Amino acid sequence: MSTALIILAAGKGTRMSSDLPKVLHPIAQAPMLAHTMMTGRALEPDHTIVVAGHEAEAVRSAVEDIDEQATVVLQTEQLGTAHAVDQARAVLKDYDGDVVVLYGDTPFLQADTIERMIAARTSADLVILGFEAADPARYGRLLMDGDSLERIVEFKDASDEEREITFCNSGLLACDAKLLFDLISKVGNANASSEYYLTDVVELARAEGRRVTAVACDESETLGVNSRADLARADAVFQSRARAELLELGVTLMAPETVYLSLDTIIGRDTVIEPNVVFGPGVTVESGALIRAFSHLEGCHVSRGAKVGPYARLRPGAELAENTHVGNFVEIKNAEIAEGAKVNHLTYVGDASVGKKTNIGAGTITCNYDGVMKHHTEIGANAFIGSNTLLVAPVKVGDDAMTASGAVITKDVEDGALAIARAPQVSKPGRARKLMDLLRAKKKKRGEDAS
Amino acid sequence: MSTALIILAAGKGTRMSSDLPKVLHPIAQAPMLAHTMMTGRALEPDHTIVVAGHEAEAVRSAVEDIDEQATVVLQTEQLGTAHAVDQARAVLKDYDGDVVVLYGDTPFLQADTIERMIAARTSADLVILGFEAADPARYGRLLMDGDSLERIVEFKDASDEEREITFCNSGLLACDAKLLFDLISKVGNANASSEYYLTDVVELARAEGRRVTAVACDESETLGVNSRADLARADAVFQSRARAELLELGVTLMAPETVYLSLDTIIGRDTVIEPNVVFGPGVTVESGALIRAFSHLEGCHVSRGAKVGPYARLRPGAELAENTHVGNFVEIKNAEIAEGAKVNHLTYVGDASVGKKTNIGAGTITCNYDGVMKHHTEIGANAFIGSNTLLVAPVKVGDDAMTASGAVITKDVEDGALAIARAPQVSKPGRARKLMDLLRAKKKKRGEDAS
Amino acid sequence: MSTALIILAAGKGTRMSSDLPKVLHPIAQAPMLAHTMMTGRALEPDHTIVVAGHEAEAVRSAVEDIDEQATVVLQTEQLGTAHAVDQARAVLKDYDGDVVVLYGDTPFLQADTIERMIAARTSADLVILGFEAADPARYGRLLMDGDSLERIVEFKDASDEEREITFCNSGLLACDAKLLFDLISKVGNANASSEYYLTDVVELARAEGRRVTAVACDESETLGVNSRADLARADAVFQSRARAELLELGVTLMAPETVYLSLDTIIGRDTVIEPNVVFGPGVTVESGALIRAFSHLEGCHVSRGAKVGPYARLRPGAELAENTHVGNFVEIKNAEIAEGAKVNHLTYVGDASVGKKTNIGAGTITCNYDGVMKHHTEIGANAFIGSNTLLVAPVKVGDDAMTASGAVITKDVEDGALAIARAPQVSKPGRARKLMDLLRAKKKKRGEDAS
Repeated sequence: MSTALIILAAGKGTRMSSDLPKVLHPIAQAPMLAHTMMTGRALEPDHTIVVAGHEAEAVRSAVEDIDEQATVVLQTEQLGTAHAVDQARAVLKDYDGDVVVLYGDTPFLQADTIERMIAARTSADLVILGFEAADPARYGRLLMDGDSLERIVEFKDASDEEREITFCNSGLLACDAKLLFDLISKVGNANASSEYYLTDVVELARAEGRRVTAVACDESETLGVNSRADLARADAVFQSRARAELLELGVTLMAPETVYLSLDTIIGRDTVIEPNVVFGPGVTVESGALIRAFSHLEGCHVSRGAKVGPYARLRPGAELAENTHVGNFVEIKNAEIAEGAKVNHLTYVGDASVGKKTNIGAGTITCNYDGVMKHHTEIGANAFIGSNTLLVAPVKVGDDAMTASGAVITKDVEDGALAIARAPQVSKPGRARKLMDLLRAKKKKRGEDAS
Repeated sequence: MSTALIILAAGKGTRMSSDLPKVLHPIAQAPMLAHTMMTGRALEPDHTIVVAGHEAEAVRSAVEDIDEQATVVLQTEQLGTAHAVDQARAVLKDYDGDVVVLYGDTPFLQADTIERMIAARTSADLVILGFEAADPARYGRLLMDGDSLERIVEFKDASDEEREITFCNSGLLACDAKLLFDLISKVGNANASSEYYLTDVVELARAEGRRVTAVACDESETLGVNSRADLARADAVFQSRARAELLELGVTLMAPETVYLSLDTIIGRDTVIEPNVVFGPGVTVESGALIRAFSHLEGCHVSRGAKVGPYARLRPGAELAENTHVGNFVEIKNAEIAEGAKVNHLTYVGDASVGKKTNIGAGTITCNYDGVMKHHTEIGANAFIGSNTLLVAPVKVGDDAMTASGAVITKDVEDGALAIARAPQVSKPGRARKLMDLLRAKKKKRGEDAS
Repeated sequence: MSTALIILAAGKGTRMSSDLPKVLHPIAQAPMLAHTMMTGRALEPDHTIVVAGHEAEAVRSAVEDIDEQATVVLQTEQLGTAHAVDQARAVLKDYDGDVVVLYGDTPFLQADTIERMIAARTSADLVILGFEAADPARYGRLLMDGDSLERIVEFKDASDEEREITFCNSGLLACDAKLLFDLISKVGNANASSEYYLTDVVELARAEGRRVTAVACDESETLGVNSRADLARADAVFQSRARAELLELGVTLMAPETVYLSLDTIIGRDTVIEPNVVFGPGVTVESGALIRAFSHLEGCHVSRGAKVGPYARLRPGAELAENTHVGNFVEIKNAEIAEGAKVNHLTYVGDASVGKKTNIGAGTITCNYDGVMKHHTEIGANAFIGSNTLLVAPVKVGDDAMTASGAVITKDVEDGALAIARAPQVSKPGRARKLMDLLRAKKKKRGEDAS
């Protein structure tokens, strides 16, 4: 089946009270629009066309990040949904397949719902997506005659009897491409808001004697996001689905409601996630790992048997091999930690590689930034980096090498060597007691002077 | 309208199982009593009188912190609510306006409810606050005849018919000051507990032919706190209201239920708050800032465009200018971080100022305490503080200056200078391998000796 | 009353999707099986016999950790619950008391329910535990005639009328030991799964004219754990009970739902727990302590008046005396911190003792590991450890002694002495500006070379 997707993403979203266009507000660390686009991608469409308007350049740039294959078209004036879809006409002018119209602010639509809409095209020219509304309030009602959609009645025009109907219009549709643009040409704007409404294609299609039908989905899939509160709720819905999926896969979440996941988080079976863990974008954790409490991961890969945290921060490019340990108050960025290596306490490892079974002492810092550029640190296998070692990059420490506690390493350390950089310890007997007496006297005097 | 508030705060709160008086237990980081006092302050009363009893000195001290204008009067014996109100008689002896009696343990009363009570005084001498109880249980019932409150019937004295009534007594009232104290003089204690009940003024007023009415509020406003579980619930109610207000204002809370707010937290539009953030008292965050996961803020100010966290701890006196970055495992206390400056990793900056665009390396510590006194560190603009620099205060580092990694800075560094304090690196070839062999042999021998 | 417990723990728990046997999956940081065993221990049984099967050695090892007195017997083939109980026959062959059969995967059974089962034995030979099921679905129904249990009918065999019954079989029972094994000998496996069902003893007992009765418990006690989602739910149920108990005892939990507790957590009255705190196994906190946000405690003891956190990590063997302070980004392991001592910032104290009123500066590290063995650090009373001091163990610092900031201490420091180990500060005027110019030029050139 040949399908083109048109995703409407031109709105400002006034109720968001934001300078950011609505469809770029994030849900589970990905722009709202990415959720619809990722769902659409499952259909392997011929075209994905995003209609941008408000803050179009920001939307264009986000779309490029999400899907390089997608096309962005511009709706310079917001004249209604039919007008928005019409902006895709040029891109699809020779297109022969189906068009499905989606919205950038309804992130919970499921791929199989779109598939059912497309399937329904075999028996109808135009397919509308409807849903049974728990509280139909002011949605347009779908008036069905068997499988045939006779009419959409807006709440304000509905009779009492029609208002009893609970099958409502979601605004999404599937249609033959040529027919859709043909119908859209005929849509007028003689209404209170002077807008061109996409919904009007139903009446126009019926007037031409076209077959129109409706497919139903669960109301939760049509949940739109119009305010920050909606956004937070949508994020909560995402989290609760994603957590349930992980449990089902055999991941242990000790306190699921305290674990925050991203759209693309991947976690393997028999991995244990302690309470209060945040997964930012781009994280893969293999099977049998342990992610301890208060850890924060983004853009990283954690291998089988690794132990992370508590209070570990893994930043983009952190690559933890099997059976590595990364402990508390440790930050790892753009660094490979080889099998069995340990980085357990109060450490910053950035732009570095650490060899197999190497132990990095507490307080170690890779000094990767000289104020202008970043440099690389290379540490060999079975090395022992003493506590509070500073590794001034670019620098190498060899296999089986050691650094003494407190060493500032500016020159390479060869295999098996011990590097020391330390001032000798000098003791001043009785000096501490004298110093404290002096300081206390000084403080007392200051107090007296002040009074 | 002239109003005086009397807030009853003398109780012990036995069910709290605590040495702290009940009204000082905190909700959203402020004493429970502060919530009632802040609500009362919105009315700009002529007098705010807090009646203290149990642990009165602790209550007095808290009241002074919350509102310098408030007066504390002492109830030395707890002889009932009428007796408690009577302790304010001396303060109000010449007072001509209205008195509103509030409770220190009902923190959710809304200002507009008090305003409605005062407004109702135009048509009644005495105004009682009532509420529709979902489960009236053992509350006193308000027997109304139109707008007129005829009687309050305690549950145990009520007929079956009267028990059907769901409009109940909250205990709060508004009355002309002189009339109130006049009525209170007549309240007796001929009851099972030998207490003077404030509620008895209703019957006394009616007996004098006074007009008595009742005003209704939502039951949730009358929620009292009597146990730690109530306290936790009250905090949860506060949090959920405060989060909803922030969302409404245009703040993004990625996971609202994981963000803990204080009574006085202020956050600007388009600021993003990641999951698991705690706002202690006294925090202001301007618009367009980013507060990342696991951050903890108290008594600080964060400007537009600043990025904070994850795992940042901002303590009282932390002042972050625009576009500053404060990163992970960083503590800032009593320090100004100027525009564009960065403090990104494992650092303690206390009692200090950091100039514009200055970069503070990982592991930097301002050594502000000499064991007796605290001292100040001043760092200029565009400076580069190398990793693990110790700044032994009082000390200054000039504009455009640098410190080498691991330097202990005890003397001022002039503008544009580079300060170094570092022992030279010495390498001992092969020594690390020998040392490890030695240690392993030693360990083995110990094991053998032990067995 | 003499009682022996038989706890069935042989199942694989296929729906857990795990390599770990089901009964070892943790709830509140203790194996699920430990919850049942701890409940059983309250009865002071003569015998506790755990029937292991799947991954029996792992189960045996866990049982030994939980209760040294317990006996593990092996069920090599899983032939049904009667067959499982039969594995305890040899251990109990001369036993004269009662047997209670429990399950390792129903962690919420309460001790008093077991006591009621045992008490019911005075008037019946066999006692079955039943519960009123909210949704009886496919549980077996208990057909009672007064106090007498006539029959258990499986759902599939039940008449419509019998299906109306909501009193259901939990599978637990209490019986005279000899009678139970006698009945079990007669249980057959002529059913669809060819299994020996324990439930069949009811019919066999009735056939012998024995008195059989049923005791009822709340359905929540019979909640079984069969999947990771069940496990998470069971943990949540545990947490919510344990939090309520702490509140009842007079502990303040500012945001109870964000505090994670273990099965054995003990916290004293008037202690305040801020949001987002994790208690691992083996923690005792005395009265009047303050545990601040984002702290993580395991295997430690915190005394009265101590302040911990935010972001404090107390590991096994951390022993905090009264009025100690342990602050942010601080890790304490196997160390005694004496009365009034402070360890406030970015520090690692492991395998150490710290004397009274001693102040440990920011960035201090006890270098306890030489790559092979761990060594001890001893710090006296009233000492002042300067910021970023490295204490290379084994080493002692005396009473009233000081170390200068940045010192690497490898030799003992005597009482009252000041130890310094620091390279002198050297300033290179103008060098920082030149260096930055150079680096910027280099970067620019690289950019040009690349283009």
